[in-house]
Amino acid sequence: MYYCDPRLQYPVRTDKPDPFYARLLQQAIGGVEGEIRVCLQYFFQAWGQRGPKKYRDMLLNTATEEIGHIEMLSTAVALNLEGAPVAQQELAAGDPVAGAVLRGMNPRHLLSAGLAALPENSDGVPFNCSHVYASGNTAADMYANVAAESTGRVLACRLYSLTDDPGMKDMWSFLIARDTMHQQQWLAVIEELGGYKDQLPIPNSFPQSNENTKFSYVYFQNSVDNGAPVTGRFTEGPSLDGKGEFQSQKNVPLGQEPTLASPKPNGFAQKEQMSVMGKVTSALKNLV
Amino acid sequence: MYYCDPRLQYPVRTDKPDPFYARLLQQAIGGVEGEIRVCLQYFFQAWGQRGPKKYRDMLLNTATEEIGHIEMLSTAVALNLEGAPVAQQELAAGDPVAGAVLRGMNPRHLLSAGLAALPENSDGVPFNCSHVYASGNTAADMYANVAAESTGRVLACRLYSLTDDPGMKDMWSFLIARDTMHQQQWLAVIEELGGYKDQLPIPNSFPQSNENTKFSYVYFQNSVDNGAPVTGRFTEGPSLDGKGEFQSQKNVPLGQEPTLASPKPNGFAQKEQMSVMGKVTSALKNLV
Amino acid sequence: MYYCDPRLQYPVRTDKPDPFYARLLQQAIGGVEGEIRVCLQYFFQAWGQRGPKKYRDMLLNTATEEIGHIEMLSTAVALNLEGAPVAQQELAAGDPVAGAVLRGMNPRHLLSAGLAALPENSDGVPFNCSHVYASGNTAADMYANVAAESTGRVLACRLYSLTDDPGMKDMWSFLIARDTMHQQQWLAVIEELGGYKDQLPIPNSFPQSNENTKFSYVYFQNSVDNGAPVTGRFTEGPSLDGKGEFQSQKNVPLGQEPTLASPKPNGFAQKEQMSVMGKVTSALKNLV
Amino acid sequence: MYYCDPRLQYPVRTDKPDPFYARLLQQAIGGVEGEIRVCLQYFFQAWGQRGPKKYRDMLLNTATEEIGHIEMLSTAVALNLEGAPVAQQELAAGDPVAGAVLRGMNPRHLLSAGLAALPENSDGVPFNCSHVYASGNTAADMYANVAAESTGRVLACRLYSLTDDPGMKDMWSFLIARDTMHQQQWLAVIEELGGYKDQLPIPNSFPQSNENTKFSYVYFQNSVDNGAPVTGRFTEGPSLDGKGEFQSQKNVPLGQEPTLASPKPNGFAQKEQMSVMGKVTSALKNLV
Amino acid sequence: MYYCDPRLQYPVRTDKPDPFYARLLQQAIGGVEGEIRVCLQYFFQAWGQRGPKKYRDMLLNTATEEIGHIEMLSTAVALNLEGAPVAQQELAAGDPVAGAVLRGMNPRHLLSAGLAALPENSDGVPFNCSHVYASGNTAADMYANVAAESTGRVLACRLYSLTDDPGMKDMWSFLIARDTMHQQQWLAVIEELGGYKDQLPIPNSFPQSNENTKFSYVYFQNSVDNGAPVTGRFTEGPSLDGKGEFQSQKNVPLGQEPTLASPKPNGFAQKEQMSVMGKVTSALKNLV
Amino acid sequence: MYYCDPRLQYPVRTDKPDPFYARLLQQAIGGVEGEIRVCLQYFFQAWGQRGPKKYRDMLLNTATEEIGHIEMLSTAVALNLEGAPVAQQELAAGDPVAGAVLRGMNPRHLLSAGLAALPENSDGVPFNCSHVYASGNTAADMYANVAAESTGRVLACRLYSLTDDPGMKDMWSFLIARDTMHQQQWLAVIEELGGYKDQLPIPNSFPQSNENTKFSYVYFQNSVDNGAPVTGRFTEGPSLDGKGEFQSQKNVPLGQEPTLASPKPNGFAQKEQMSVMGKVTSALKNLV
Repeated sequence: MYYCDPRLQYPVRTDKPDPFYARLLQQAIGGVEGEIRVCLQYFFQAWGQRGPKKYRDMLLNTATEEIGHIEMLSTAVALNLEGAPVAQQELAAGDPVAGAVLRGMNPRHLLSAGLAALPENSDGVPFNCSHVYASGNTAADMYANVAAESTGRVLACRLYSLTDDPGMKDMWSFLIARDTMHQQQWLAVIEELGGYKDQLPIPNSFPQSNENTKFSYVYFQNSVDNGAPVTGRFTEGPSLDGKGEFQSQKNVPLGQEPTLASPKPNGFAQKEQMSVMGKVTSALKNLV
Repeated sequence: MYYCDPRLQYPVRTDKPDPFYARLLQQAIGGVEGEIRVCLQYFFQAWGQRGPKKYRDMLLNTATEEIGHIEMLSTAVALNLEGAPVAQQELAAGDPVAGAVLRGMNPRHLLSAGLAALPENSDGVPFNCSHVYASGNTAADMYANVAAESTGRVLACRLYSLTDDPGMKDMWSFLIARDTMHQQQWLAVIEELGGYKDQLPIPNSFPQSNENTKFSYVYFQNSVDNGAPVTGRFTEGPSLDGKGEFQSQKNVPLGQEPTLASPKPNGFAQKEQMSVMGKVTSALKNLV
Repeated sequence: MYYCDPRLQYPVRTDKPDPFYARLLQQAIGGVEGEIRVCLQYFFQAWGQRGPKKYRDMLLNTATEEIGHIEMLSTAVALNLEGAPVAQQELAAGDPVAGAVLRGMNPRHLLSAGLAALPENSDGVPFNCSHVYASGNTAADMYANVAAESTGRVLACRLYSLTDDPGMKDMWSFLIARDTMHQQQWLAVIEELGGYKDQLPIPNSFPQSNENTKFSYVYFQNSVDNGAPVTGRFTEGPSLDGKGEFQSQKNVPLGQEPTLASPKPNGFAQKEQMSVMGKVTSALKNLV
Repeated sequence: MYYCDPRLQYPVRTDKPDPFYARLLQQAIGGVEGEIRVCLQYFFQAWGQRGPKKYRDMLLNTATEEIGHIEMLSTAVALNLEGAPVAQQELAAGDPVAGAVLRGMNPRHLLSAGLAALPENSDGVPFNCSHVYASGNTAADMYANVAAESTGRVLACRLYSLTDDPGMKDMWSFLIARDTMHQQQWLAVIEELGGYKDQLPIPNSFPQSNENTKFSYVYFQNSVDNGAPVTGRFTEGPSLDGKGEFQSQKNVPLGQEPTLASPKPNGFAQKEQMSVMGKVTSALKNLV
Repeated sequence: MYYCDPRLQYPVRTDKPDPFYARLLQQAIGGVEGEIRVCLQYFFQAWGQRGPKKYRDMLLNTATEEIGHIEMLSTAVALNLEGAPVAQQELAAGDPVAGAVLRGMNPRHLLSAGLAALPENSDGVPFNCSHVYASGNTAADMYANVAAESTGRVLACRLYSLTDDPGMKDMWSFLIARDTMHQQQWLAVIEELGGYKDQLPIPNSFPQSNENTKFSYVYFQNSVDNGAPVTGRFTEGPSLDGKGEFQSQKNVPLGQEPTLASPKPNGFAQKEQMSVMGKVTSALKNLV
Repeated sequence: MYYCDPRLQYPVRTDKPDPFYARLLQQAIGGVEGEIRVCLQYFFQAWGQRGPKKYRDMLLNTATEEIGHIEMLSTAVALNLEGAPVAQQELAAGDPVAGAVLRGMNPRHLLSAGLAALPENSDGVPFNCSHVYASGNTAADMYANVAAESTGRVLACRLYSLTDDPGMKDMWSFLIARDTMHQQQWLAVIEELGGYKDQLPIPNSFPQSNENTKFSYVYFQNSVDNGAPVTGRFTEGPSLDGKGEFQSQKNVPLGQEPTLASPKPNGFAQKEQMSVMGKVTSALKNLV
């Protein structure tokens, strides 16, 4: 179970509220690279964890930390929205830039939320929990977490770069540091479990004798281009798991043209798809 | 641009069509771990690739391969649906198990598709392109690809295990091998670019002097539990990027309770939220 | 910020694991009547709360409680999935009902989650954060919360009724009690702020002189039926806010047929929609 | 069944077409607080109504009224879009502000709809029918309706305040009055059925002897903060349903740490999650 | 504006309630081929109609008819759900098939709706208003309507075929007839406006001199296959609009390999993507 | 299976990069009228095609062409984004219009994609595969394809009109020509199969003796308006399929008021909905 503290994990302040920046911040709350996603992802991984208890505990701890990050960013959005125009009087009078401000912000920050954060991205698309990856396989989950923290830190750096508000920059200097750690943390689990040699291919519990190993370390060239084919670490030398040798070859069809049965009478295709007559008719028409 | 060949990349056949297995296969087509996702993900990464041309070419090649995988699986679905009941006559007469078959399959395989595949997962949820990750940062993208191929191979192994149809098992032995290669392929790019030391933290182009490095390699314990805290590769020793030393510490609030401004008059909160009088009234009522 | 405790808020156990019941439980996790929704709803209301601080604190407390409910239900799902079949060998051999079990469960509990909970409803539709209501108006939010806890308790009672597992029934006896309290809690805020007379209409900060009060307490009959019209507390007597008298009247159009301008030339409607000639042509054709 | 009249329920006109305001209006059409939602919600509640026929009739009448509201707002959008720029010629020539107008509007009003309304919110997110609540429990449905009309009227007041077009203000003065009535109407059903005492907790048909009543009227404090706890109408005094006494207590874990079984061999977790050896290995590595 | 009549457009009855058939019927309510879609599509086309008034009136009339169809189908769902099991007692006792019934139905028909219809498809995916096509171009809209009524009638025929309940078959005999008419109705508008010659290409208001007419009537062969290319009405003879002659040709790239600029320094790609050094480094590593 | 060529199908260039135009272009990539939709639609129709092989081949060819169109448009987006501001330094210094540019573009083009295309529409709503129509009925599919190419060409013409960049205009002149052909191509299949007379009603394999033909060619007037009813090609004369005569009649209810059974005791409606007592109580209260 869980407890709250009304204080924030790290100070959040804004010196110059900026409703457009509030819109940008939403990407870090409800975007697929954002904090709601990692929070729920780590929670569902923890709650479904089968195997070593330590990973359940670690995931619970970090998921709990992430609630505090959503809280920090939601507070940042609310603070950046203070002073945003809410009425036509403001647009017409006093503030000549109120109209521009309103057009630059997400109007639903006012219309739907009364000048506060939404669980949505910077285009107003609500977060959708299909982005919560918890596969039951620890290594697959760790890489999903690394991906989340990598795109998350890229986003955070872009948002850092798009403001010169000292409060916002300070908040990001903390959150970016946490993303640094979390990238390390999930990769450290892979290392702790033996790294590439022990963990690859994922899942490592499927007998490789069941896979068609002729194709397990081959880079396929699908290009019709006649120039030099792509080469790199992935086309020659030992594979990263030490179980094979990289090769490169041109991809060719090994299968045949598929043939599906005719539609069944009560499946309600067109008659011409179904009957022999239909096929003949169609062929005849084609000849004319 | 692109070309097609009516033949399949690898043979697809089913010895005992099974409409329930057709439903399971859908997860590998339109699930978040499925082939539509990786296909579009590699294409959008290629089309937006800025930097070394070789990665654009590699991504294009592998994206093109993936179209052929969607095709193989869609063919497998259509073949597994042959013989599925389409009318009440079948249910009432001849085949006593037709009702059970119909209840086990996704009825939309008949109702919406006429016994063919849908671009959806095994619960009938359509694939949604928010799952296509293409961040503009090669390392972040590579880890997103590793995550996709890892959850994808876990899924493929589960589907292999849930059938004893020789045709289906043969198809999976090929597709699982390709997932093995693709996990290698994306990790090889990370290695080619220098591995953890050069690539972490992602993005490696953000000056770490801008982050609050006091928090960059610290594992936070958020638990109120008094037992032994979690320890592991991520709580001590050098960080994986060689730029810090892992530590562990109890998380405490460094910020204050946030205070938001009162609602603006035309924001249409309740009066009690806005006015001083409202606050006093509310306090008085509370005393009674 | 937040803290976790590895123990559950209330015991969760299952005496007879039932993978079909695991599917039903998902509605209480990721359904619109479920726990993810109330958890995030109370958090976003708290984080955006403007006005009396006590409501922020109350919302934070109850939001935090709700994380523990998601955790309890996710644990219940994982426990009900133990023993579910994962491979064709089980289907073919030992357990003759394994096939029926697999067909009754959500196969993605195995395929995507490795026998654990998903942040989705019982049809596998992922939770979507557009269901998080936080309007900035406390009274509107409280009624949204009452609605969530009312449909939530109806769901919980149905789930209680669909099991005879003592562990599951005990868990529900606790969660249903909490729903009872939470219905009370949000309605108590309305009462504390003065009840119908002070709080209605919502928002109470909009001057009713700006609304067309001729229509503010009138029930419209839109039926062409000539029988007795509907009557009730809402068609006569004083309105609940004490500011009007209920009436009932037949609805009639007060506006005119709307006329939209012709399409602009570069808006690329069909020619016949745009030109005078088009209109004449169309009329002439109509005459024939 | 249903009939139409080409005239509008109430006059809709706009004196100064404003494409940006057309975008704002969309929230009242296809937003979660909007008219499509209440229209479909009341229809589905009516069509599934079991119990007193009068509520079916009432719901049908008001659902039918709401179609006319969608129509009014869609007309308002189309009128506000008249004059919006549709071509680069306009941008370059005559109207120097055409570019600003185009950037402020939702470009899909032109691109997808040819200057007309869309069934979407003001961010262009399409309405999704998961927002249609019809639970089969009349009281739960009534509170869902109150919530919809409360957030709806808050939105309407904000939109009233964001325009000074007399036609738009007149339209809103009518629609806001209707929201006033509809809030009353649904609460009047609760009163008619006996109010809090008879209707709470919802559903009132579940025997409270089956719930763990020790927790039915208790406010849980989940905060680790040592300051004064939250108090209010919900922490002391008789409960609103007259069936209990409010209390407040600190939340503590009553359950234990959950233990899930190890992954099954064919569930394709990592080996380290499954085997005893895996666990030992992991423990050993942890010691180093 | 609109009026209702409590009677149905056509009788709906079910002789043998079948909860599984209730699930199938949902596809015709909230599926993309279903009635909510056509209802809203025709309404939004009507409300945004610019040009000949008669089409607005026609669309309004048919949209209004479609509300009655949703009502008929929702009634059919509710009737088919009568008798469905709602509690474990039923499962354990009296009715030995109750468990099978529950597993075959959509459990949310009970859990979320109390044995009534949902605005969702037969997999429980809620209808999403992005399927409402109203382009502002009458001919494009008419073809969207033909597509909707064609897939709709295919679905209706499949549902007719999947029941032997006389009441359900009678209901479908009516609804299928209405789909027949509606296919005709929208195609008749195309004919009334001059058919292929006048209406194609859509939009007919764009000057074809602006298109690269070298490619306007050419079928592209993209296949690498060396067999006989596809031929048909679309590869030779006059085009249907009488403005060209069909041809067929092999598709070849006319463009060049695209070159995107390097990432900007603050866009936070990896360093290796950005710098000249990065490129050199990468090339060198590649050589090793 | 499939092959790629690094060159584009047709040249794509932009003379004046315009980040706002990049946003508009997204509608043609990930909008419902866009290229991802037709690409996947033609592929799924091909992969599930039952009946004449020529249509499978044709669909495969054109689907493959469409990948190249997504590629062209994604390249166009990336080129239009070059030069877009990525950092606050640009906003503050050098470029006084950088702020305006940033506010006009979709900020996620930078935040999520690093200045490249997204698989989403111009409002940032991701493409959702429920828009992929593949019904198993060739005629229904052809009309779905005509609808897609018609709304697609309307969109393309609007986008052509909204730019004066010669490169962009040239690209559109090609893509608009291809839409012209594709409209022809799908309609030609209908003609090839016999046109209206043979193909209507769709499906033509359902015996019309099973439909209630009294209603098959009747236009229903649902309007209460007393003016002249709508007339046109669809109200008189022979039907387009030659199988009936159009008529027009006033719609009247042929069914009765539906009566649903009372809620079952364990379905957890309110007591007042269920019991006879409840009904009496409710009636009595109503009388007071």
